[in-house]
Amino acid sequence: MAESRENNVKFVIIGGSDAGISAALRARELDKSASIIVALADGYPNFSICGLPFFLSGETPDWHRLAHRTEFEGIELLLWHEAVAIDPAARTVVVAARDDGRKLLSYDQLLIATGAVPLIPHIPGMNLPGVHSLHTMDDAFAVYGQLHDRAPRSAIIVGAGYIGVEMADALVHRNLEVTLLGKATSVLATLDPELGNLIGDELRRHGIVVKTDVEATGIESMDCLRVFGTNGFAQSTDLVLVAAGVRPASDLALKAGISMGQKAAIRVDSSMRTSIPDIYAAGDCAETWHRMLKTYSYLPLGTTSHKQGRIAGENAVGGVRHFAGSVGTQVVKVFDLAAARTGLRDHEAIAAGFNPLTFEITAWDHKEYYPGARELRVRVTGDLDNGKLLGAQIVGHWRAEVAKRIDIFAAALFHGMSVEDLNDLDLSYTPPLSSPWDPVQLAAQAWCRKASRP
Amino acid sequence: MAESRENNVKFVIIGGSDAGISAALRARELDKSASIIVALADGYPNFSICGLPFFLSGETPDWHRLAHRTEFEGIELLLWHEAVAIDPAARTVVVAARDDGRKLLSYDQLLIATGAVPLIPHIPGMNLPGVHSLHTMDDAFAVYGQLHDRAPRSAIIVGAGYIGVEMADALVHRNLEVTLLGKATSVLATLDPELGNLIGDELRRHGIVVKTDVEATGIESMDCLRVFGTNGFAQSTDLVLVAAGVRPASDLALKAGISMGQKAAIRVDSSMRTSIPDIYAAGDCAETWHRMLKTYSYLPLGTTSHKQGRIAGENAVGGVRHFAGSVGTQVVKVFDLAAARTGLRDHEAIAAGFNPLTFEITAWDHKEYYPGARELRVRVTGDLDNGKLLGAQIVGHWRAEVAKRIDIFAAALFHGMSVEDLNDLDLSYTPPLSSPWDPVQLAAQAWCRKASRP
Repeated sequence: MAESRENNVKFVIIGGSDAGISAALRARELDKSASIIVALADGYPNFSICGLPFFLSGETPDWHRLAHRTEFEGIELLLWHEAVAIDPAARTVVVAARDDGRKLLSYDQLLIATGAVPLIPHIPGMNLPGVHSLHTMDDAFAVYGQLHDRAPRSAIIVGAGYIGVEMADALVHRNLEVTLLGKATSVLATLDPELGNLIGDELRRHGIVVKTDVEATGIESMDCLRVFGTNGFAQSTDLVLVAAGVRPASDLALKAGISMGQKAAIRVDSSMRTSIPDIYAAGDCAETWHRMLKTYSYLPLGTTSHKQGRIAGENAVGGVRHFAGSVGTQVVKVFDLAAARTGLRDHEAIAAGFNPLTFEITAWDHKEYYPGARELRVRVTGDLDNGKLLGAQIVGHWRAEVAKRIDIFAAALFHGMSVEDLNDLDLSYTPPLSSPWDPVQLAAQAWCRKASRP
Repeated sequence: MAESRENNVKFVIIGGSDAGISAALRARELDKSASIIVALADGYPNFSICGLPFFLSGETPDWHRLAHRTEFEGIELLLWHEAVAIDPAARTVVVAARDDGRKLLSYDQLLIATGAVPLIPHIPGMNLPGVHSLHTMDDAFAVYGQLHDRAPRSAIIVGAGYIGVEMADALVHRNLEVTLLGKATSVLATLDPELGNLIGDELRRHGIVVKTDVEATGIESMDCLRVFGTNGFAQSTDLVLVAAGVRPASDLALKAGISMGQKAAIRVDSSMRTSIPDIYAAGDCAETWHRMLKTYSYLPLGTTSHKQGRIAGENAVGGVRHFAGSVGTQVVKVFDLAAARTGLRDHEAIAAGFNPLTFEITAWDHKEYYPGARELRVRVTGDLDNGKLLGAQIVGHWRAEVAKRIDIFAAALFHGMSVEDLNDLDLSYTPPLSSPWDPVQLAAQAWCRKASRP
């Protein structure tokens, strides 16, 4: 257990989203003497960026409710202050206020939590009016403005990853005709195609035109917008959303002489320290230790940002806490389905030198005799050399405990369990909610049978 | 991974419920040469006894659907054959067929999986017509017969444990007026009273008269039945259900000279072997190794029966597999709520020599800004001496992933994690299904704060 400290440390945090605020809160909790300043480029401290699709769908009509919290007692927030330079020798940060000139902040400990910026494809027309990315509150307000002021009837979404499929769902909620473009052969390419196709079917079932194997090549403005893509794609639309992923916002750190790691993310160690003393980095601007791959990767996720921020905050006030690593756990809801994964998929495991087998079962989420049973598709990836669990994927009804079932796999991965030993876990059972062997364990048993008789 | 064997072993199993059938299936899977005979006292192999309340509620109208499976290829089932004697020296079992005299079965390996029998309170009137216990299919048919033939308008349930509260729910489903009697100060006394009271409130909200601190003292038959209890309880009713727990059905083993353990359950080792060579025991008739208490206990649960049976089956055909132990994970659905626990509660931890602190939080099951968020009450018990997780309890809406959240705690307990280290688990997040810190982790953080500032 961490203990309280009294070091009178001056802790400056650049960025007020998941990682930055998590660090501030943790430092505040552990050290009553610290002075904690968070400088953020916008005016939305600790807003849930993952919630933007639900604001835009109308399910969360009031954007203020997207704030994870609104109380920041004992933390000084500098809203609309963009950090423009770090001087590690002088231990200062220059921040530019939107309407108030520049300010010099001196620090004892500094956290860079600048997050990520959208990846914008290098194609013509990305700056046309009506073409939007979606990463900040201001992005969301721009899309919201267009939805309300222009009442678009159709939208094309470029990118069929998590944000793309969530926004497809959101815009159908708003009665738009939606076309979703994905580069890969199936949507949600972070899942195996067998499962990604289930999500594709779910999108189509709700009237979305899903185009896979299509990469946008350009956008033109005529009466409306016209989007062109590979495989002969050409379609007019009122609104274009670009959801093509993100890259780390690491320029500020780079200019300060801090070392970069994977994919231009800030290099960190397990305590979230950068290459320069007393400067930490956390969240979407930083590398993430992958617990399975035993290497650093770039894996920007809100959950990881919270963890890394909390650890940086603890260490900044004299604590000793290490980031245990990500296993890449993710879940998304798309209409009535939830799709989740954790760990490595087959090709990722092969690339990392494992000898994987992936096997899929279909199982009821609870005893079929109790009303409302739903089918889950559960894929288990394990190592044929030593029987170790490598990863899992589940797709099923979003009320069928898909998310917390993937978490059982995630917990097992965290502890390096073998697939067979999943059967040892004492999981809960009552007929309306599971089976005596949870689907997680049924999938493990099926994998072991397959593995023992190739 | 277990490998196939060819030993031509003659494997006899006494009992065809969870443990017996799990053993048979596992032995069949691993050893194609084995001859496998399951003798069961009734005609309902591998029926889901946990499903009886749903058959009686009408939610599962066809009792046949309670069968976990109906295919038993390669397994010889002797239905309606009750085992009456074991001769370990001769390696034989005498079974008495309902209509076909006695039969002698010889075995190389024997599994005793005779299950449990209801605990019947030693009070007058337990044998009166209209007074039922509920443990077997035949018990269920008897209750069902009375519900259909006599159309009772009211019922008193003696015992407010899992079966008691499930049957209260079931009989309300049938429009009976239900009174539930519990000996303890709160219903579902396997939970802390703070949470048990939530279940009590839920029962009352659905019109059930809940009487705690009442122990039945006798039943008389007048025009209808009249139940008497402590604290002045006296009430007439049409139907009495006794759900006062179970005891191991271990008489057969005792007569064969097999050693008994906790609470007259059959003593077993981690491979499910009894004190006599080549005789195994598994399921509700046997002891259970408690992984937290590091001792044997009597903890009859369907999940454990499946595990123990599977292990006994593997070992009976020459395998080497050990039961990893139970952490006491349980969940029950009561109307709109699910109540779950795993590990030790405060008083159990104290009795076992730990130095526990229990702390409770209320957390949303998912981001409050997304529609339909429900409150979860999460109690964490940890050890103040070393920060280790000792147990957890959750009550919340049954669609709020209570069951699989308790399983995250169960997986953490299995691996001996500290409460603080729960924050390292890479759990899934999307706003409709969780928070960046899952409620499991929010509860862990709150516990740590409390523990560090007693």
